[in-house]
Amino acid sequence: MRMVDLILAKRSGHTHTKAEIDFIIKGVTDASIPDYQLSAWLMAVCWQGMNADETAWLTDAMCHSGSVLDLSAIGPLVADKHSTGGVGDKTTLVFVPLLAAAGIPMAKLSGRGLGHTGGTIDKLDAIPGFKSDLTIDHFIKQVKDIGMAIGGQTSELAPADGKIYAMRDVTGTVESIPLIAASVVSKKIAAGANLIILDVKCGRGAFMETEEKATELAKTMVAVGHRLKRPVTAVVTDMEQPLGLAVGHTLEVIEAIETLKGDGPADLQELCMELGSLALISAGKCKDKEAAHKILRDLMESGKALESFRTLIKAQGGDPAIIENYKLMPTAKHKFEFVVPGQGTKWVEHLDGRKVAEACKLMGAGRTKKGEPINLAVGVVLRNKVGAKVEGGTAIADIYADSQQDYEAARAKLEEAFTFSEKAVKMPSIIKASVS
Amino acid sequence: MRMVDLILAKRSGHTHTKAEIDFIIKGVTDASIPDYQLSAWLMAVCWQGMNADETAWLTDAMCHSGSVLDLSAIGPLVADKHSTGGVGDKTTLVFVPLLAAAGIPMAKLSGRGLGHTGGTIDKLDAIPGFKSDLTIDHFIKQVKDIGMAIGGQTSELAPADGKIYAMRDVTGTVESIPLIAASVVSKKIAAGANLIILDVKCGRGAFMETEEKATELAKTMVAVGHRLKRPVTAVVTDMEQPLGLAVGHTLEVIEAIETLKGDGPADLQELCMELGSLALISAGKCKDKEAAHKILRDLMESGKALESFRTLIKAQGGDPAIIENYKLMPTAKHKFEFVVPGQGTKWVEHLDGRKVAEACKLMGAGRTKKGEPINLAVGVVLRNKVGAKVEGGTAIADIYADSQQDYEAARAKLEEAFTFSEKAVKMPSIIKASVS
Repeated sequence: MRMVDLILAKRSGHTHTKAEIDFIIKGVTDASIPDYQLSAWLMAVCWQGMNADETAWLTDAMCHSGSVLDLSAIGPLVADKHSTGGVGDKTTLVFVPLLAAAGIPMAKLSGRGLGHTGGTIDKLDAIPGFKSDLTIDHFIKQVKDIGMAIGGQTSELAPADGKIYAMRDVTGTVESIPLIAASVVSKKIAAGANLIILDVKCGRGAFMETEEKATELAKTMVAVGHRLKRPVTAVVTDMEQPLGLAVGHTLEVIEAIETLKGDGPADLQELCMELGSLALISAGKCKDKEAAHKILRDLMESGKALESFRTLIKAQGGDPAIIENYKLMPTAKHKFEFVVPGQGTKWVEHLDGRKVAEACKLMGAGRTKKGEPINLAVGVVLRNKVGAKVEGGTAIADIYADSQQDYEAARAKLEEAFTFSEKAVKMPSIIKASVS
Repeated sequence: MRMVDLILAKRSGHTHTKAEIDFIIKGVTDASIPDYQLSAWLMAVCWQGMNADETAWLTDAMCHSGSVLDLSAIGPLVADKHSTGGVGDKTTLVFVPLLAAAGIPMAKLSGRGLGHTGGTIDKLDAIPGFKSDLTIDHFIKQVKDIGMAIGGQTSELAPADGKIYAMRDVTGTVESIPLIAASVVSKKIAAGANLIILDVKCGRGAFMETEEKATELAKTMVAVGHRLKRPVTAVVTDMEQPLGLAVGHTLEVIEAIETLKGDGPADLQELCMELGSLALISAGKCKDKEAAHKILRDLMESGKALESFRTLIKAQGGDPAIIENYKLMPTAKHKFEFVVPGQGTKWVEHLDGRKVAEACKLMGAGRTKKGEPINLAVGVVLRNKVGAKVEGGTAIADIYADSQQDYEAARAKLEEAFTFSEKAVKMPSIIKASVS
């Protein structure tokens, strides 16, 4: 079997066999297939797609490209939550300590930034000393010891996915339903959890721009999960505008801490409550959403949720003092106000999350080539979002930049992100649909 | 400007600007764009295509990625001929010494094997000592001195094309009209000739499988040539079955020598006469085809054409003794007969050139990864082609292999190449159309 023939086959719209997919993933894992062949194949997959069989085989092969964790030592229940990634999505930073505080063991593997969205592992890099490259033994031991762990892709778990994930980021091949589904589900299965909750974003800030595409991705992942005997539940949520107010690594860690205190932005708070409720109910910790919400609110108000995050930071080598002193994280040199254009009262009609992300990327908060360093300090913090009533000439966002030049590039892009209306605009709802 | 954004733009079907194409070709030339981004972009171009502007800009950028030869010192007329490549196409090996013998200076740059077809430079590698990596000064001096030179892609001429050419071969991105057109025409313009004749193949043995596609490619190249002020004439010729009888590097050099003696297979002889006539008439050496054919036939019969090839081999460091002793070239260990299946009289109805090429590739006569060595000794020599009357049980081809195993793989593939009929079949004509 030769890789060039498989690229040609996919390019021509043929369906791969299981043996062919196993050959490709083995070749990616042992590096016998060069990067330039992998990237050409990935683009051919974006072009021609994959059917349900191919997607399940790809997921299975990527999952078994390294160790598959056996978490049975932790207990009968281990949960995991995954988001397909969206602008300003710091849900994991809230969800993991929150659910661990509620007594549900959380074994979470996350990725680095893909395309225009930031990865959880990149965000955690903003906490000085925080290590996410845990060994498998360390990862399992930590979940047993403190009820949670957040690990990055290592060469031990789903190594093929790690390689493909980094490659897609820099070759314009992020947006592909079978590739996203296989990446997400292979990591979840390799990480060993048996309660998997997926948050599939839709809108201009997400990989899947339309609700239709997001629902197709959700269905694909649920189908792959069932086919591979690992039940998956998926929620489709809105990501037309950024989630919460902060976009940028340090800035998002700060917002996650505020949310754990119960002081987060309304939409982020609602999403954490929804996903948390699903997990608590699935785990049999309570009967309905109302009871679940009460448990979660109590954890936030009592300070237990924030203490749980402190425990996580300490366990992974980070400096927990950041919780009291945000300046201990990488901090941008300058802060500029971004004002509503014109005069008079108006409403935010539309806020394009992708353009907000592009503004941040122009300041260095995203990658151009795999492995490239990114600027953790810079970003944007919105003061208002869609549906808010604002006055011309007042600040609607703050831009955190390291130079005047970066600020100006970001400001020009941010101007494209906002649309205003003279008439009142309704606030959008965050939860769109659920698939199981 | 970032390469990942340009990949995404092409993937989404956008048109590149001239500045974007210049950025890509500059990045390929100075290696600031990594291979994996180049290959993903190439696949996106295969997917979404390029318009006439983009194709001309790409050609121009590739042409100017290195030196552009000024051949005015040689004289007012310098000719070049190029074939898009097909199975068994050794025309260049005949055409260059033949036309040089007719007094037309030939400055020819050729490539290595692409996809399922062998490159002229690979074929010349079969002549011990033959050097095709000439410097520009050497190349020009040789055309001045002996009236001809065959050079390979060097880092001095169209270096971007050299890199892209090698990459396409191993990433399933050979078949693309704008990429083929830009590759061919950029090399021709960089090589400085002002009489450019293109031989565009069509059929299963060629890059362009249909006459329609081949004509589209011919028109694209003629249009690019005119847009860049370098007149181009193109002929569309049949490559459904292999050209001539020999397929494989050493075997094709032998057939070229026989053709220079006037003993070549009918179709190869006809093609060389047609292309040669076009060149002689365009160059004002004669008025019509009849006169041109007489000049060419005289050169063959008098031995002057063969002497011209000997001069070329000597000038480029090769051993001219191969002309008298073919065994001085790489020679396969074994020769096996391939027989017509069944019994009784039948006619060859169809002979699939691509399958013949695949049979040779299975014996090592083609590349899987860029830069990979190939086996120059192995191949297939046909005894009969489409339209021939044959008897079941008699040999119709010889397979030259280095092992029993290789032979068996090639034989199985060759069986797929032939279709026989109980009724008489007409011999196909080689010349299909001309575009200028």
